[in-house]
Amino acid sequence: MRIAVMGAGAVGCYYGGMLFRAGHQVILIGRPTHVEAIHQHGLFMDTTRFRAHVPVRASTKVSDIQGASLVLCCVKSSDTENAAAMMAPFVEPNAIILSLQNGVDNARRLHAQLLRTVHPAVVYVAAEMMGPGHLKHHGRGELVVGPSAMSTQMLEAFVNAGVPMHVSDNVVGELWAKLILNCAYNAISAITKMPYGLLFENEGARDLMRVVVQECLAVAQRESITVPGDSWQGVEGIAATMPGQFSSTAQDLMRGRRSEIDHLNGYIVRRGQSLAIDTPANQALYSIVKLLESAFTADHPCPT
Amino acid sequence: MRIAVMGAGAVGCYYGGMLFRAGHQVILIGRPTHVEAIHQHGLFMDTTRFRAHVPVRASTKVSDIQGASLVLCCVKSSDTENAAAMMAPFVEPNAIILSLQNGVDNARRLHAQLLRTVHPAVVYVAAEMMGPGHLKHHGRGELVVGPSAMSTQMLEAFVNAGVPMHVSDNVVGELWAKLILNCAYNAISAITKMPYGLLFENEGARDLMRVVVQECLAVAQRESITVPGDSWQGVEGIAATMPGQFSSTAQDLMRGRRSEIDHLNGYIVRRGQSLAIDTPANQALYSIVKLLESAFTADHPCPT
Repeated sequence: MRIAVMGAGAVGCYYGGMLFRAGHQVILIGRPTHVEAIHQHGLFMDTTRFRAHVPVRASTKVSDIQGASLVLCCVKSSDTENAAAMMAPFVEPNAIILSLQNGVDNARRLHAQLLRTVHPAVVYVAAEMMGPGHLKHHGRGELVVGPSAMSTQMLEAFVNAGVPMHVSDNVVGELWAKLILNCAYNAISAITKMPYGLLFENEGARDLMRVVVQECLAVAQRESITVPGDSWQGVEGIAATMPGQFSSTAQDLMRGRRSEIDHLNGYIVRRGQSLAIDTPANQALYSIVKLLESAFTADHPCPT
Repeated sequence: MRIAVMGAGAVGCYYGGMLFRAGHQVILIGRPTHVEAIHQHGLFMDTTRFRAHVPVRASTKVSDIQGASLVLCCVKSSDTENAAAMMAPFVEPNAIILSLQNGVDNARRLHAQLLRTVHPAVVYVAAEMMGPGHLKHHGRGELVVGPSAMSTQMLEAFVNAGVPMHVSDNVVGELWAKLILNCAYNAISAITKMPYGLLFENEGARDLMRVVVQECLAVAQRESITVPGDSWQGVEGIAATMPGQFSSTAQDLMRGRRSEIDHLNGYIVRRGQSLAIDTPANQALYSIVKLLESAFTADHPCPT
């Protein structure tokens, strides 16, 4: 299968690298620093199961997505429109497009630009870029997609590449379930520079996360979203399974990069305003992250 | 007048120093580092009107408050009970006791230990300790007391010492008005390490402060407190008059010290819980400051 990965950040490199290792033709579209490093040494994948230099193709040119039958959109949620506009001329007519992004509205936003069906995938992976072309995988790696997203053959391709792929008839609910976990942890981890385990040990932080989750669920309910599972158990699970992990928002802020907070707590605040639902705890976290971001004004070029 | 100042932090040093310069017999009770520096070089007062080494007396012994006809309690709100217990054996029977502290319940808490009338004073001064015995005054310096707090003669003594002293028949309301300003600014300034002006320029921060103020006013109303003036105008006024100032909470955190947050946003959260009023924005700010404090476990000895 010919696969193009738009955005060579941690998510794009992880899934692109796994699929390449399983024998697929993969090209990563990314920023020059990552692309140059991958050209020189391959993608260095330091995962929980293996460490290897992986000679996957990489390019800075979005036009190189031409010919791919599967496109994985892995840019930051804040770059979705830009990425879509750049991809639009080059996506093959029959290509399957998957959004492997945080937030709940990226598939819709990609669709609005591409005028093509885009399938959302819920991404459960703990990974980060440690430097140019250097991926560190901390754990997990499964994806959740809707029933119509991919053929059985494609699903098998992912599973055979070591990427567990679950099919859900409530993928939007699953996206919300993940959004709620992100809203509970990402901003607090970024603001305090603390990992999940330390946060969850703290009673006040738990109380705050509980309020954040309640506000999110109130918005979801008004949006007629059925959030699967018990969100609070999900919060507990994160602390139990990834106690040493810092959120992607924390990683962004530590590196002086703009985060995805507009599409996490910021999304809840905006939807709450539209629906006349108060979301003060989310608003507090959102405002503080935006303040911290305002201290650096680094441009965040697209693609990731 | 013989005056004892309990707590040789910025507030205690400012008012103690001003009264000493006006000819009163003042003793500052403080920690060894400040006391030793003051013994060697005097109290260095770097104010908006003068810079001088002021040979005020200083002591680490609480027993040295004996003989004072006026006692100014200037310890952090978290040290109130300790300070009261230490002072109790040595306060003269006829001494006037003033609490020059943040928060709204210090006079009550001092009274509970001292079993004596304690008059709250609202303190409006921007000042900080830059090092042992080194006070930096950034602006203002007025006090507000209740009608019964001090005699006309005492009021004149303060005014003649360059300390404007206003009398209000709603000093509890005035304390709340200041508490609300502290709740709006202190935690956000501490969390983001930003001064008041930068915070107020930011739309999201203003929105958050507005919610914080509303929550505080809801609690005040249920407590039957009449908060004088327009609290939001007060918030605007802080940004306009002290744009470069960092909150005392920010100063505490930057120095690895426990802050007074339990008696600011934390107080609103606790009162809200008692009164079944939701205060999620205050709770978010409070929880984050407590998390940041949990990263250092420095003991905070009494007195300040």
